[in-house]
Amino acid sequence: MNILHGNILFSKSYDELVAYEDSYLIVENGKVREICSVLPEQYKNAEVTDYGKGVIIPAFSDLHVHASQYIERGLGMDMLLSDWLNQYTFPQEARFADMNYARPIYDAFIDDMIKHGTFHACIFATIHREATSYLIRRMEERGLYGYVGKVNMDIASPSYLCETVEESLRETEQYLADCQNHKTAKPIITPRFAPTCSEDLVKGLGALGKKYHVGLQTHLVESRWEAQEALRVYPGYKCDTEIYERAGLMENGPVVGAHFIFPAKDDIEIIKRHGGHTVHCPDATTNIIAGIMGVSALHRDGVNITLGTDVGGGHSMGIYTQIGRAVQLSKLKWFYEPETASPITFTNAFYLATKAGGSVFGKVGSFEKDYVFNALVIDGMEDLDFPLTPAQVVERFCYIGTTENIKARYLGGKLIG
Amino acid sequence: MNILHGNILFSKSYDELVAYEDSYLIVENGKVREICSVLPEQYKNAEVTDYGKGVIIPAFSDLHVHASQYIERGLGMDMLLSDWLNQYTFPQEARFADMNYARPIYDAFIDDMIKHGTFHACIFATIHREATSYLIRRMEERGLYGYVGKVNMDIASPSYLCETVEESLRETEQYLADCQNHKTAKPIITPRFAPTCSEDLVKGLGALGKKYHVGLQTHLVESRWEAQEALRVYPGYKCDTEIYERAGLMENGPVVGAHFIFPAKDDIEIIKRHGGHTVHCPDATTNIIAGIMGVSALHRDGVNITLGTDVGGGHSMGIYTQIGRAVQLSKLKWFYEPETASPITFTNAFYLATKAGGSVFGKVGSFEKDYVFNALVIDGMEDLDFPLTPAQVVERFCYIGTTENIKARYLGGKLIG
Repeated sequence: MNILHGNILFSKSYDELVAYEDSYLIVENGKVREICSVLPEQYKNAEVTDYGKGVIIPAFSDLHVHASQYIERGLGMDMLLSDWLNQYTFPQEARFADMNYARPIYDAFIDDMIKHGTFHACIFATIHREATSYLIRRMEERGLYGYVGKVNMDIASPSYLCETVEESLRETEQYLADCQNHKTAKPIITPRFAPTCSEDLVKGLGALGKKYHVGLQTHLVESRWEAQEALRVYPGYKCDTEIYERAGLMENGPVVGAHFIFPAKDDIEIIKRHGGHTVHCPDATTNIIAGIMGVSALHRDGVNITLGTDVGGGHSMGIYTQIGRAVQLSKLKWFYEPETASPITFTNAFYLATKAGGSVFGKVGSFEKDYVFNALVIDGMEDLDFPLTPAQVVERFCYIGTTENIKARYLGGKLIG
Repeated sequence: MNILHGNILFSKSYDELVAYEDSYLIVENGKVREICSVLPEQYKNAEVTDYGKGVIIPAFSDLHVHASQYIERGLGMDMLLSDWLNQYTFPQEARFADMNYARPIYDAFIDDMIKHGTFHACIFATIHREATSYLIRRMEERGLYGYVGKVNMDIASPSYLCETVEESLRETEQYLADCQNHKTAKPIITPRFAPTCSEDLVKGLGALGKKYHVGLQTHLVESRWEAQEALRVYPGYKCDTEIYERAGLMENGPVVGAHFIFPAKDDIEIIKRHGGHTVHCPDATTNIIAGIMGVSALHRDGVNITLGTDVGGGHSMGIYTQIGRAVQLSKLKWFYEPETASPITFTNAFYLATKAGGSVFGKVGSFEKDYVFNALVIDGMEDLDFPLTPAQVVERFCYIGTTENIKARYLGGKLIG
């Protein structure tokens, strides 16, 4: 049992952000039991951790991040995608064949993710099974919620990152088999994207997904080039997303499609049919890819949307920074495409980063009854004599805060830093 | 005499960023004397401050910032411009009639600007002379380079922020007269923008500009609405910029036009004719205004471009954050307007933030011989075993650094923090 006092803020839905000022949050067995403005009689003698004017919010979910690119974040950001991949990313990913190289980077990545208040994440590793297994084991040991994927790529890739179909499937199966008993950090099938995966590979992955009951993460219609190239490599398919549907990869667990900037009508129908989640990665979108996800229109169409940092295409490890950026980009999208797009609010974007993203991992990302208490305390955002509401504290944190403003972190009800 | 050792990085031009690794920078009488890889014989016994792998760069210039909006930065960022002005900005600015309110905010603003490595700035205050005088005096006392303006607005403004022409001119003249002996922080005439200034007011300001030899800062073609509204209020004028040219406001000192997102051909011709500077404020552009300045095309056309934070429309006090953001927005502009726009590089954007912006204030913003040594030392950006070049250190700083990564600050050759 934990009792926290402070201002409490969380999303109930896309349009509803609720604040309980000067209230108590009661945590039992690591889960939210209730929120009340006066402490009930039965808890009168219990110890209360008082965060004063601090704002208690759900921990964040990062639905798309490349752990192996952690080391190159904020570099080459003025390049075009192909140059950035060939000069930075691919040579860098190749080094994860060496465990002595991989271990300290994955350790630093996990530490920094926790520091930034992200406790739930869908993570791309590299093609290397041993390093990927290390990453998922460390996530599990730390009690973090994750879906971690060994990347698959067997065509149109640099020779030093290109697998055969057999290798790719064998290593993936070994990886899935090794992780079967994981409780919070689980494996997920991770074809890089259609242009680097043959049909044989994707079909083989489909069989593994069914056998081991694991979901799918991939880059989905992330650029015009990718959407077109997918159909060139997969003639006879209606759209990028159908490649995974036909392979049976969308029925065994969570489906997470990163970027989803240029969906055809069929992409939207298929992702909805399987309850898949799309991932808006605002900084990556502007750094490397170009184009803005149509958040307002997709939400209207009933597509699940979440947020991702997409480090290293995105530079910041903080999902909270992407909340502000999502609002910004929605205004630019509206400016350029006023017929279909409209601006989103802080309330909308905070929901994407917490409850919507958290829903992929179970009951995390909100403080409704029985949600796991994975939470952060935000403070130090007020200046001089300009008092802020809890929502304003968190809005300012998302725009100009740093990890220093995260004063406490709770994972499964336990204070971890 | 100061001798610093480290990696030295600065812009020579829009396309040329030069790095001197493991070198010495010799400062004499507060100015750069020379940079050398081996310390000349005559300095053999001089004391050297060694910054090791730290990168010594010129301090930044913020060409557009509202000091009075400092207190509201990062709030209401999902609003539309008119709501944001009426709910946050105007009521907030009105409070600067009270010196007890103004002083601590302006002090905090200056401290935070220095903390963020900005030593040269074009600043909007409010309509209130007394508070504006306090701000410019504090800037002068701290040795910061600035152009600070008492804002003028006499039409279409909330009653509590609306001056009569007579008041506005009288207070402005008093302000200009009071600052005549300032050395580094100087006054500048600051009509808010054409839609809130009558022709009589602007003409009167023109006469003051001539009499006191002071320049002009204003918001220029910042939105489609503003460009149109300016011409509605000023019938018979060809464009927004002509309003200030006809009033004689563009011939007495620096001319700084913030945003310049929707210039007509005439705006461009007039600003070039007077050697004026435009200010790109990437975050403000996406937060509040919408639309992206055409940096690549304006540069090709020979227009001077600089960077601004535009706090509080922009949220971050760090011009360094706007370097990354300028690169990002140039890619989005290119995506949406490929016929006229092209992406800019980190080299280009760093030049805008240092040498280009600095040129408004004199010889600051570069380390060529005889430039005033206003400088920062950047460090702590390297991770694990991924060595970075000096340009990569600074690029990463601009994307994910914080003020903690500014390890030293020099103003006029003196270490100030």
